[in-house]
Amino acid sequence: MPRIAIDAMGGDHAPGVVVRGTYKSATEHPDWAHILVGDEAAVRRELEPCGTPLPNIKVVHAEEVIGMDEHPVEALRAKRKSSLGIAVGLVKLGEADAVISAGNTGALVAGATLALRHLPGVKRAGILTTLPTLKGRIVIMDVGANVDPKPMHLMQYAVMGDKFYRGVIGNQDNPEVKVGLISVGSEEGKGNALIKETHALLTQAEVDFKGNVEGHDIFEGGIQVVVCDGLVGNIVLKMSEGLAEILVKMFVGQAAKNDLKDDPRFKATIRDLMYAIDWREVGGAALLGVNGVVVIAHGRSDERAIASGIRTAAFCFDSKVNDKIIEALKLEDSKTGAAT
Amino acid sequence: MPRIAIDAMGGDHAPGVVVRGTYKSATEHPDWAHILVGDEAAVRRELEPCGTPLPNIKVVHAEEVIGMDEHPVEALRAKRKSSLGIAVGLVKLGEADAVISAGNTGALVAGATLALRHLPGVKRAGILTTLPTLKGRIVIMDVGANVDPKPMHLMQYAVMGDKFYRGVIGNQDNPEVKVGLISVGSEEGKGNALIKETHALLTQAEVDFKGNVEGHDIFEGGIQVVVCDGLVGNIVLKMSEGLAEILVKMFVGQAAKNDLKDDPRFKATIRDLMYAIDWREVGGAALLGVNGVVVIAHGRSDERAIASGIRTAAFCFDSKVNDKIIEALKLEDSKTGAAT
Repeated sequence: MPRIAIDAMGGDHAPGVVVRGTYKSATEHPDWAHILVGDEAAVRRELEPCGTPLPNIKVVHAEEVIGMDEHPVEALRAKRKSSLGIAVGLVKLGEADAVISAGNTGALVAGATLALRHLPGVKRAGILTTLPTLKGRIVIMDVGANVDPKPMHLMQYAVMGDKFYRGVIGNQDNPEVKVGLISVGSEEGKGNALIKETHALLTQAEVDFKGNVEGHDIFEGGIQVVVCDGLVGNIVLKMSEGLAEILVKMFVGQAAKNDLKDDPRFKATIRDLMYAIDWREVGGAALLGVNGVVVIAHGRSDERAIASGIRTAAFCFDSKVNDKIIEALKLEDSKTGAAT
Repeated sequence: MPRIAIDAMGGDHAPGVVVRGTYKSATEHPDWAHILVGDEAAVRRELEPCGTPLPNIKVVHAEEVIGMDEHPVEALRAKRKSSLGIAVGLVKLGEADAVISAGNTGALVAGATLALRHLPGVKRAGILTTLPTLKGRIVIMDVGANVDPKPMHLMQYAVMGDKFYRGVIGNQDNPEVKVGLISVGSEEGKGNALIKETHALLTQAEVDFKGNVEGHDIFEGGIQVVVCDGLVGNIVLKMSEGLAEILVKMFVGQAAKNDLKDDPRFKATIRDLMYAIDWREVGGAALLGVNGVVVIAHGRSDERAIASGIRTAAFCFDSKVNDKIIEALKLEDSKTGAAT
């Protein structure tokens, strides 16, 4: 049974929503251990109204909090007793199997990388998240951990993305896991030097590499793992979130003009659409490549997002994604280790 | 009155849609001269059914055609008599004020850059296109001409985008032209080296620079000119097109489930939304920084897109965008010329 350390003080609405999201998860999954790390008094104050105390929720006190806008490394150094740092530490100490925080992303990435180190064979950790498509969620990596990667890093992200998809997202309807490399054209040879060199590495890798992909290919859902550098990935992710939000607003605006806005069928349609594209259902991104399960929840997370993030962490642990990454990279190293 | 050279053979549906789009434009704008360049017999065959011959449509014969997938520079070298090359040549010869093609983008960019050269002061030409936002269209540059730019190039794109917006897109409702730099965070210092150096240059430039921007900032419409390198811009553009298309498909799919799909108000809503986000209304991108007006139409262009592209070219010429770019860059050179 997975033991999840939760940074109770991280996020725009902490500790309230984090505690309530944890209680929701603990109710739904009595066999998962939930360890809330943060100001004990504040956490218990939020827990009390949630309902009867649950045996699978434990509280670990942390007297410091790293703010959303603090400089990651400086904050980690200055605040040795932060909830984020102690939650990560529980994984390092073997007292938790996974950690999740909706707090300072940079601090979580830096703290987890420093404390847990890389998995054997991993050159650089990366952040994986998901995108909605016509055929369900797909994964995209990296979305911000590595803004100046080497081709080998991106090749490893393809392998990690493949293992994550199979372990956490994959479903019976779609046993295939196709990998695409974001570029400015689908033909081989399109893109900058990084993309061209990565393309060459991926054709040799043990993944179902379909070559360069563009917007349409991605959102039609024909690819399950999209690989890109952290700068492009972060921009694409935020552009997608922003565009999806304004398109829904435009849709509602046009519906109002057409006297449709208050039609219950229209409201149901919007609700279903929002659900399909809602990041809360996925509950954040995963920092892959470090020696532990680390889930980065959205700063804006609500209870549902926190509960989904905990689920993602549990699935990562249960499906042994990290062990599979280690095995897969051993295989790649035997072929392309020289390319680093 | 602007004289527009039109590559009649360029695009997925040429020459038919190009000729009909040109006829549409010639009907709506009797004071604009339209010069259709291509296989004269084929062009006249398409013109004939359009209606009564118009005095403001002229046909110039070209016996060769550059295919959509040909290598740009090789094709230009091998096909001296291509419709694309001759259309660009008319601008060089002073026989046309602008050129538009829905054909091979790489060939148009290379051909125009080689034949027309850069505007005085311009370091590198770039491609500008538009994005739909909650507050109307905004411009984004570069979207693919320059995948490995220097900070100075991006600074110049900000200036060019500002002049294009004021001359072609701007309207009374929005006299302000704010410039944003795409990055992975809104704080200064976020991003890679290129973004940081460009940020420094833009704070010195004679534009209303609002700093780094992300997805939400852009699509909310608070920025009118978005600056980025050609790789990021091209990917963002195609991702946006792809996402917008599948979101509309999702709308319709959910509407069908909710028994709303055939409601005339829903159909009207979808039609209005499609119109708001439809690239056909803008009719392509502009290659800015070359000594002439060059409009790159979408390969998938239909008649409406061609007519809009011709309109964009005419507005570019009438509003003297290039003269304004030259003047603005003289001013910048006096301050930052050393930075190249």
